[in-house]
Amino acid sequence: MSKLTDVPKRILIGRALRSDRLGETLLPKRIALPVFASDPLSSVAYAPGEVLLVLSVAGVSAYHFSPWIALAVVVLMFTVVASYRQNVHAYPSGGGDYEVATTNLGPKAGLTVASALLVDYVLTVAVSIASGIENLGSAIPFVVQHKVLCAVAVIVLLTLMNLRGVKESGKLFAIPTYVFVGGVFILILWGAFRGLALGDTMRAPTADYQIKAEHQGLAGFALIFLLLRAFSSGCAALTGVEAISNGVPAFRKPKSKNAATTLAMMGLLAVTMFCGIIALALVTKVRMAENPAADLLHNGQPLGAGYVQDPVISQVAAAVFGEGSFLFVVLAAATALVLFLAANTAYNGFPLLGSILAQDRYLPRQLHTRGDRLAFSNGIVLLAGAAMLLTVVYGADSTRLIQLYIVGVFVSFTLSQIGMVRHWNRHLAVEKDPASRSRMIRSRAINAFGAFFTGLVLVVVLVTKFTHGAWVALLGMVIFYATMTAIRKHYDRVAEEIAAPEGPSDDMVRPSRVHSVVLISKIHRPTLRALAYAKLMRSDTLEALTVNVDPAETKALREEWEVRGIDVPLKVLDSPYREVTRPVIEYVKSLRKESPRDAVSVIIPEYVVGHWYEHLLHNQSALRLKGRLLFTPGVMVTSIPYQLASSEAAKLRARKRQEWNAPGAVRRGPAERPKAAPAGKD
Amino acid sequence: MSKLTDVPKRILIGRALRSDRLGETLLPKRIALPVFASDPLSSVAYAPGEVLLVLSVAGVSAYHFSPWIALAVVVLMFTVVASYRQNVHAYPSGGGDYEVATTNLGPKAGLTVASALLVDYVLTVAVSIASGIENLGSAIPFVVQHKVLCAVAVIVLLTLMNLRGVKESGKLFAIPTYVFVGGVFILILWGAFRGLALGDTMRAPTADYQIKAEHQGLAGFALIFLLLRAFSSGCAALTGVEAISNGVPAFRKPKSKNAATTLAMMGLLAVTMFCGIIALALVTKVRMAENPAADLLHNGQPLGAGYVQDPVISQVAAAVFGEGSFLFVVLAAATALVLFLAANTAYNGFPLLGSILAQDRYLPRQLHTRGDRLAFSNGIVLLAGAAMLLTVVYGADSTRLIQLYIVGVFVSFTLSQIGMVRHWNRHLAVEKDPASRSRMIRSRAINAFGAFFTGLVLVVVLVTKFTHGAWVALLGMVIFYATMTAIRKHYDRVAEEIAAPEGPSDDMVRPSRVHSVVLISKIHRPTLRALAYAKLMRSDTLEALTVNVDPAETKALREEWEVRGIDVPLKVLDSPYREVTRPVIEYVKSLRKESPRDAVSVIIPEYVVGHWYEHLLHNQSALRLKGRLLFTPGVMVTSIPYQLASSEAAKLRARKRQEWNAPGAVRRGPAERPKAAPAGKD
Repeated sequence: MSKLTDVPKRILIGRALRSDRLGETLLPKRIALPVFASDPLSSVAYAPGEVLLVLSVAGVSAYHFSPWIALAVVVLMFTVVASYRQNVHAYPSGGGDYEVATTNLGPKAGLTVASALLVDYVLTVAVSIASGIENLGSAIPFVVQHKVLCAVAVIVLLTLMNLRGVKESGKLFAIPTYVFVGGVFILILWGAFRGLALGDTMRAPTADYQIKAEHQGLAGFALIFLLLRAFSSGCAALTGVEAISNGVPAFRKPKSKNAATTLAMMGLLAVTMFCGIIALALVTKVRMAENPAADLLHNGQPLGAGYVQDPVISQVAAAVFGEGSFLFVVLAAATALVLFLAANTAYNGFPLLGSILAQDRYLPRQLHTRGDRLAFSNGIVLLAGAAMLLTVVYGADSTRLIQLYIVGVFVSFTLSQIGMVRHWNRHLAVEKDPASRSRMIRSRAINAFGAFFTGLVLVVVLVTKFTHGAWVALLGMVIFYATMTAIRKHYDRVAEEIAAPEGPSDDMVRPSRVHSVVLISKIHRPTLRALAYAKLMRSDTLEALTVNVDPAETKALREEWEVRGIDVPLKVLDSPYREVTRPVIEYVKSLRKESPRDAVSVIIPEYVVGHWYEHLLHNQSALRLKGRLLFTPGVMVTSIPYQLASSEAAKLRARKRQEWNAPGAVRRGPAERPKAAPAGKD
Repeated sequence: MSKLTDVPKRILIGRALRSDRLGETLLPKRIALPVFASDPLSSVAYAPGEVLLVLSVAGVSAYHFSPWIALAVVVLMFTVVASYRQNVHAYPSGGGDYEVATTNLGPKAGLTVASALLVDYVLTVAVSIASGIENLGSAIPFVVQHKVLCAVAVIVLLTLMNLRGVKESGKLFAIPTYVFVGGVFILILWGAFRGLALGDTMRAPTADYQIKAEHQGLAGFALIFLLLRAFSSGCAALTGVEAISNGVPAFRKPKSKNAATTLAMMGLLAVTMFCGIIALALVTKVRMAENPAADLLHNGQPLGAGYVQDPVISQVAAAVFGEGSFLFVVLAAATALVLFLAANTAYNGFPLLGSILAQDRYLPRQLHTRGDRLAFSNGIVLLAGAAMLLTVVYGADSTRLIQLYIVGVFVSFTLSQIGMVRHWNRHLAVEKDPASRSRMIRSRAINAFGAFFTGLVLVVVLVTKFTHGAWVALLGMVIFYATMTAIRKHYDRVAEEIAAPEGPSDDMVRPSRVHSVVLISKIHRPTLRALAYAKLMRSDTLEALTVNVDPAETKALREEWEVRGIDVPLKVLDSPYREVTRPVIEYVKSLRKESPRDAVSVIIPEYVVGHWYEHLLHNQSALRLKGRLLFTPGVMVTSIPYQLASSEAAKLRARKRQEWNAPGAVRRGPAERPKAAPAGKD
């Protein structure tokens, strides 16, 4: 097999599969769109409904403001898309908002963005799954009757999938996303055709209901506040837009251009769907309320606690396609599926961002290396745990969860756009070429407007939603920020402590001699191997050490030592309490005390077994001893493993683990090529 | 400080404190009695009641059989005590029933005894605490109303105490045990005085109730069966008698004689209390039923589900002292306390037996070394978990739990006594001295009678209780037996696999050269130290190895390497997927492939920190790499620790852990003096 004969080559280029994988991984636009856009596109499943919900506070008459709010959302969407097209060109490395903010506004701004994004990932999971369950529930009543249970079950399922490392594939995203987009477009077109060409009167299931306005005849400041709140809720449609700017490396070349085009396509699709659904909702007289049990009336009577308010998209589909019809069911299923995919997005983005933060030492270092299953697992479990907590606390109610959602998004939008303005300022200061300058000035204008607009929306969101739940999101951000600051401080403190002294390394006090000690319990293959290896190391002195836990066994050991004529002196430590660790530690300390400039090398034969329960039966004393020896200065601890037959099982498992796919591999693109330091011997 | 200057001496004799501790640990008889007898003495708190309960099945008229049953229990108690006095003399090492059965009947019999004892320890906890709660409940109704909760709380408390290693002290046992014994004797004497001298009519709280016999007018075989069942229940009074035979080493000299005397005292106290309570119960007309809600009638009406049946000892105390009187409350409290101490006995005995079983490789080896906190903790948690499960399943009902209890005790009694008969046979085969021979023949007769009687009781218990719950205990024994057999098989298989080949050790293929590799991530004190130590080891070749995870960092490392003029070649491994483990493993494998007879020494600098959460931030890659390297043949793995300032905290904790007292230390006595192999250099 070439795999086995070609080891040096494999070391140089990693795995034989690497280059194949590389081609497989790069995304054409038609696949990149669903991979990155399932999150923003899926939000049109709930954003229009949220607008109507808020407006209903002022009664059904306020619904006529909804086109204006839709318009504001459209303008905002175009602004954000245009802004991020600049980001994509300026930062093709995929660092996204965190990189932009850190580079241009400093580490604190960057960390703020990172905290906001981490909170957002949690909420993406919670909101998308809650909404997915509600959409599924419009077709399958059981699901909505056991909302929390079903939502938690979906979270658990997604978590297990991601923990197991199910390979992400572009197609997995493409099919449901395109079915969803296609379904919504058919819905809009068929609705328009029926309404305009056939002149049908389409009526939503709730068309006959009346809305009891909580505040009748709102006007002036109160009305404006309500409209702003409705607008804030509509902004939920913008969540996830920034995802593409994190994924530039995954695109085919020209990466930035393709990413920018995909961004534009995504924006266009999103606003069309958003506006279409709002329009159909108005035409079919969808009636929604924040508190439907009390505020929706049928023949003057409140509908009561048993009433389940279906999502706007499903009500519109019921009106256009007919409730329970084939297309209605297909659209409901596709909507739910695309929302679950959107949730899955967070499972991929969370460890990706974690890896970048780890590189900057805000999170444990091991998150930085790819394919670290343990680290990814911890991140995934943390994400799932937080999302599940929110789901349970908020009863899997998407409307209540959305109140928390938008703050984080707009924090990162705003800081990123401010950062981009700085970015262009910096470049303009040195750029001489007039053509480049004018392009930069144009980009700066776009980003400046983007910063202004998103900043304004952030203020609006904060003001209108703080008491509705945005404070929870802010609290989450503060916790992430504080934790990451603490981790960074720890790393900095350690780095200072271990910094090498100036000058050549000979400055270090180098021990003059090394005294090796091989721990022996019995004479068998592992200990004989350890003795053989220890002799190879040619330390200054070498002795075998045993602890007299059982006098009879010790006596037998001495005798066999003699019989075999082993040419290493055997030292026996007494242990009146049948302990192993303490006598060895004290002996090592005494050696160090005798000659403080010497080092002591403790050599421990170890069994290697294949199952954790076998491991419990071996090496426990060795493990404890090793743990304690590490705290003893001037010591090195050597394990000499002896592979028992059963260890083959573990090797097989390790090989399987190697083939594990880290979540988010598709959207992350291939690893960067090393820019320096070609491999090979110096 | 002499502590620091006297290191070699401390190594020889362990700790400076050792000899002091030794004196402190040996028990005089007056302390040994409560330490070992709290379990058997406390069982008189429930055993008499159990006899009455069973008899009540045949109606109150059957109560007149109870003196005969008490007599049978007394005879059995004397038989068992007499038998164990032989054990104590013949096996002064404290191995107990397990040792006796293994030595004389073979390992299978020994393992059966061990399984029975392990099950018994679990049941001692469950039964004693359930009964303690019931006794406490007779004074404090709240406790008995929340029986399961309180029982579980006591188990948790005992578990935490034992996990923390609260130092066992003889006095802790002495006071409640003597208060309890004293209280019961005052009860009996005062009752006798009131009844005989004053002619008072003492009436238990239940004296007016009638018992509805489940089987009226039982006769013939059915009656005999019921009497045997009542006798079986009464045998609960014998549980724990064997404890002294495990604890001979803890006695002052002459150990065996003192232990035998203590055993006799214990037997005498137990039977006196048992008979006294039965007698008082008959005089005061205590009425108890297995199912009191339905079978106890007051004025012809069943008492109903709300009725709580108080233990016999508390009913008698209420009759003699008056309900709620000072002595009544003191006796209830002392009874509960002594029962909780009896439960604590199991927490001490379980790890002690575990340590002996570990020596014979039926349990993980590390249980054998004393003071191994982790191993003890696992044992304690296992014990507590099993006891808690039983408590919850059986609703903390001592009567239902006792059905499970007695099987294990009599399995070990019987096998131990049969073993003793074999023991004497073996000795008689070689003994010539007529005086010794006649003593041995006498002992053999006692043990033979003991074996016969306890074996008979075992059969009776099995027949009368199997369906009542004894099958659960048997199932538990089977599980323990199977697990221990599997562990032993594993150890035997491994021992065979690793057995050293015959002849001198040079038979082993010894690697010819050693190639050392120091893993480097950055240049700092830990890596410089590792390099210095690695140079000391004088391996055949030495190189530094780094994985190119981040090209910029790698470049900086190479430059600093040059600047510092480090005279070890630096090799850079490429890692396209930013992994650390795989490139290193493959490189090591390639080295081995180039020269298969050489060994590879991988040297890993490691940070040592003081808190687990700090540990999460460091060494994770090193840990994973070490784990994988152990599976690679021909490799030795050396950790060179660098102690960060925060590691001081861990050192302090380690020192505290050293002062931890293993549960059961008092009853175990001081560690044996080594019989051979005095310490010191060869």
